[in-house]
Amino acid sequence: MTAPEKIPADLVADWHTLHRVFIRPEDEKSRQTLVKYMEQILFGLHDFLNTHVGVTEAIPLATLARSYTDTAINREPEKKLAEVIRDIINEIAPRAVNVASPYFIGHMTSAIPFFMVHLKAIAAALNQNLIKLETSKVLSVLEKQVLAKMHRMIYNREQKFYDCHVQNADTCLGLFTNGGTTANITALWVARNRCFPPTEHFFSVEKDGMPAAMKAHDLERMVVLVSERGHFSLKKAGGLLGIGNKNVIAVDVNENHQIDMAKLTRMVQKLSRRKQTKIAAIVGIAGATETGSIDPLPQMAHLCRTHKIHFHVDAAWGGPVMLSEKYAGLLAGIQEADSVTIDCHKQFYMPMSAGMVYFKDPRALDRIVYHAGYVNRKGSVDLGIKTLEGSREASSLILDSALKIMGSQGYALMIDHGIETARLFAQKIKDRDRFQLITEPVLNILTYRAVPARFRQLLDTTQSESRRQQTDGCLDQINIDLQRIQREVGKSFVSRTRLKHFTGDNHDIVVLRSVIMNPYTDGSILDRILDEQETILDTMDIQDPTFSHNIDIPQGEHQDG
Amino acid sequence: MTAPEKIPADLVADWHTLHRVFIRPEDEKSRQTLVKYMEQILFGLHDFLNTHVGVTEAIPLATLARSYTDTAINREPEKKLAEVIRDIINEIAPRAVNVASPYFIGHMTSAIPFFMVHLKAIAAALNQNLIKLETSKVLSVLEKQVLAKMHRMIYNREQKFYDCHVQNADTCLGLFTNGGTTANITALWVARNRCFPPTEHFFSVEKDGMPAAMKAHDLERMVVLVSERGHFSLKKAGGLLGIGNKNVIAVDVNENHQIDMAKLTRMVQKLSRRKQTKIAAIVGIAGATETGSIDPLPQMAHLCRTHKIHFHVDAAWGGPVMLSEKYAGLLAGIQEADSVTIDCHKQFYMPMSAGMVYFKDPRALDRIVYHAGYVNRKGSVDLGIKTLEGSREASSLILDSALKIMGSQGYALMIDHGIETARLFAQKIKDRDRFQLITEPVLNILTYRAVPARFRQLLDTTQSESRRQQTDGCLDQINIDLQRIQREVGKSFVSRTRLKHFTGDNHDIVVLRSVIMNPYTDGSILDRILDEQETILDTMDIQDPTFSHNIDIPQGEHQDG
Repeated sequence: MTAPEKIPADLVADWHTLHRVFIRPEDEKSRQTLVKYMEQILFGLHDFLNTHVGVTEAIPLATLARSYTDTAINREPEKKLAEVIRDIINEIAPRAVNVASPYFIGHMTSAIPFFMVHLKAIAAALNQNLIKLETSKVLSVLEKQVLAKMHRMIYNREQKFYDCHVQNADTCLGLFTNGGTTANITALWVARNRCFPPTEHFFSVEKDGMPAAMKAHDLERMVVLVSERGHFSLKKAGGLLGIGNKNVIAVDVNENHQIDMAKLTRMVQKLSRRKQTKIAAIVGIAGATETGSIDPLPQMAHLCRTHKIHFHVDAAWGGPVMLSEKYAGLLAGIQEADSVTIDCHKQFYMPMSAGMVYFKDPRALDRIVYHAGYVNRKGSVDLGIKTLEGSREASSLILDSALKIMGSQGYALMIDHGIETARLFAQKIKDRDRFQLITEPVLNILTYRAVPARFRQLLDTTQSESRRQQTDGCLDQINIDLQRIQREVGKSFVSRTRLKHFTGDNHDIVVLRSVIMNPYTDGSILDRILDEQETILDTMDIQDPTFSHNIDIPQGEHQDG
Repeated sequence: MTAPEKIPADLVADWHTLHRVFIRPEDEKSRQTLVKYMEQILFGLHDFLNTHVGVTEAIPLATLARSYTDTAINREPEKKLAEVIRDIINEIAPRAVNVASPYFIGHMTSAIPFFMVHLKAIAAALNQNLIKLETSKVLSVLEKQVLAKMHRMIYNREQKFYDCHVQNADTCLGLFTNGGTTANITALWVARNRCFPPTEHFFSVEKDGMPAAMKAHDLERMVVLVSERGHFSLKKAGGLLGIGNKNVIAVDVNENHQIDMAKLTRMVQKLSRRKQTKIAAIVGIAGATETGSIDPLPQMAHLCRTHKIHFHVDAAWGGPVMLSEKYAGLLAGIQEADSVTIDCHKQFYMPMSAGMVYFKDPRALDRIVYHAGYVNRKGSVDLGIKTLEGSREASSLILDSALKIMGSQGYALMIDHGIETARLFAQKIKDRDRFQLITEPVLNILTYRAVPARFRQLLDTTQSESRRQQTDGCLDQINIDLQRIQREVGKSFVSRTRLKHFTGDNHDIVVLRSVIMNPYTDGSILDRILDEQETILDTMDIQDPTFSHNIDIPQGEHQDG
């Protein structure tokens, strides 16, 4: 990490060096060197990842951190590209997380098809900036086409609708964002702004601000309703947009972790009666981050239509399920949403990081238009005038190419595999005495927990709520330890979170969470992951439940969004 | 664009195909094929870009758009990777914009060193997600180190400060964002939240929202002050954050396009006397997007300190100038800023898109903490708990590697070249009768306009403001046409914008804008660009100024941020 004491002659920053890094060398030898580097990136990294599974190298974080404390920037070059690549392969990769392993089933980050690396390299080599036509030209045109393709996947409007809008400079069917978070923020931004039409002395919330907008419309409170399974980016949006994150209200879920329609309806009726409260949006979830559950979208759409409320669907996870002929029906009702979030770096298997947001109304984004004289002009197809972000890479080129290489059917195969393998996993969990399935997989996500035999008996027999809570407390600690030990061993990885086990509960339980999106994750791998967990349980010093009155639940792990 | 009528046998989505794209082939032949593709990306694209300069292929946008109207997604694969790459090289690249050309001097997007493509490919191959430690491990640790390096470049605090914070899980020196826009939004988000400490019945603006916060603090209005050269993302931030973009107030500039300190001071004094108005932040610009000008940062810092106002510096463009031993002094005072924005995809020469924001106070970001049970836990080093964005790629690995390959001196060479070449360009413009330099380059940006001889005489002699305005109107149209024709010819590219020529003016003028960041842009290229503009002027049908009463200024090009 420290600079070399003596600077080698070829590690000097001068014009000669600079020209070398800008002019891609034309002579055959230098070209071969550069290609060799790419080969190392493609295969050096890959070979490494193939020989290590799960979370890599169990070096403690504190030890690791000690190697990354030098904060000086070297005046002269420290390394050549070849050394940088070698160091990344030898030093960084072994201490990174092997998200590409089929044993890594804990998060929504997974293996990506190898061609994605090529496509990302293409986007970098072209280095177009989608903020404006003058730095992207055909890429802006292509992006509008890709947006229309996705809009059609969601809304399936008539042909003439797409003929009208696909290359229409005045309208906008959606936009690419940095990810689901900025997509959700953008959707709620538009929803917020829709609530405040101009009045005699008021122009817009965008121009005049939230306090003036509320005053002009005689409002005291603006709220957003979403089930307690909502992604934490929605709360963040509430805070950012000046709505207040306490006004992003978590509605209870039913036993399937879907929003409780009866409660939602009552809440909407009650809030609607209050003249000074405005519901900016109701958010439906199509693939909850923790459980994969899907809200009853048609009923939510109906409720929103009745009360003229913006209906946003957060399909960051579930969106691509629409490409599956077998399972697209799970997302029925999504075509009634006013806006829809879908992530590219999740089930479109693109590299970090890209998301999208779509709007039913091609004029919806007019409410957040910003432009600058040196960059964008009204009526141009400059895509940057209706985006939260400014400069943007050509993620649309990557998605479009991937769709051409895979076909919708290629994606469908992966989606179907994930859903069906998750069902298989659920069965395996049920078949084992020492595990308890907590949430059935609707998509490819499920939660479960380890329940050693004596606890199982206790759970089955106890009638006392406080006794059950106490037992859950013991199980929480067991599952926290289990997940940590398995992660530290580094062969496989499941994540953990907290959920209410039963709808009426006042307490959360710790659950293990599994996301099956790697096409190489199969039944035998899942068996091995459960086997390993059983082995770990055998080694753990598990206290008898009757002596566990004073177990502390670790602080600060409560679900926040 | 349409699907093939007959599907070739190898273009079927099945498990065999799927396995091929996920398993990077191990046999030598398949490996060679994949490497060959990378070679095509590295050199096929490069060879193309070397034979076309400026804005590529003059195919009209409308014609281009007609080829991108099919909105169906093919069920089966349409193309193999090889064909996709070939099509991108043959069909997309020629219709994209060759931002890498040294004749492309119109925007802040330019050539990047070739190794950046390798580094971007590495980030994609590792596909780490910086939102949390469990999907990034060493990359989170490395990112904290890179953030400390940059913080040190800006603030240069004592060694023990960095020893304390470089790997401190509780504090945060800055963060990587998708770009300067989200960096500016994040800075103003923090600044907004700092204005509202808790009161007896109020927790925070983040939780309770803007209307409640204003009420709790008995405020009627919140404002942000920035010069009229401020980037439009600041207005966007005002709208997004519920402050209202009309409350992002544009302060007049002096003749050097720096914020007018006398006016700013008077405005602050006046606003501070109003009990119900709160100045959330004053923004200094270090490298204005249109003129490259730098605000008087030390005086602004002093004013902010006196009035206890958050001082943000938007150094999205100018930040890396701090690496130049020759010109770092231009940014003196930046170390007094509470927050600083710097872009990676601008003068750090990284591919689209990455930015950063830094905070003097390592606790500043505590005001925007969000976390979720399944992802982030309090007190962990999960970097995603204090970011606007969610999932993020490892841009920090790219910046760190680039700094090691280039050294600060390598960057300094490019910075110095840009500034000095811009000065040379200014002299060339002054030396030619038919051009008028509008803004001198402080950094590597200047503006000028074409002024045919008879207009020049008129401008020199007229005393009448209305007559001057009319003449400027004629010149506007000439420069709009000139810029458009040169862009359409496709050999070179300058951009255009609108500015006030003199501080007291009531009207803007159209100016040509040049950004010199490509190390291959030199005096002879700049001569050729001016020669071409003179040739175009010769072919233009320029009306006599005395007959130009009714020239229409095109609508909708006013600067909006």
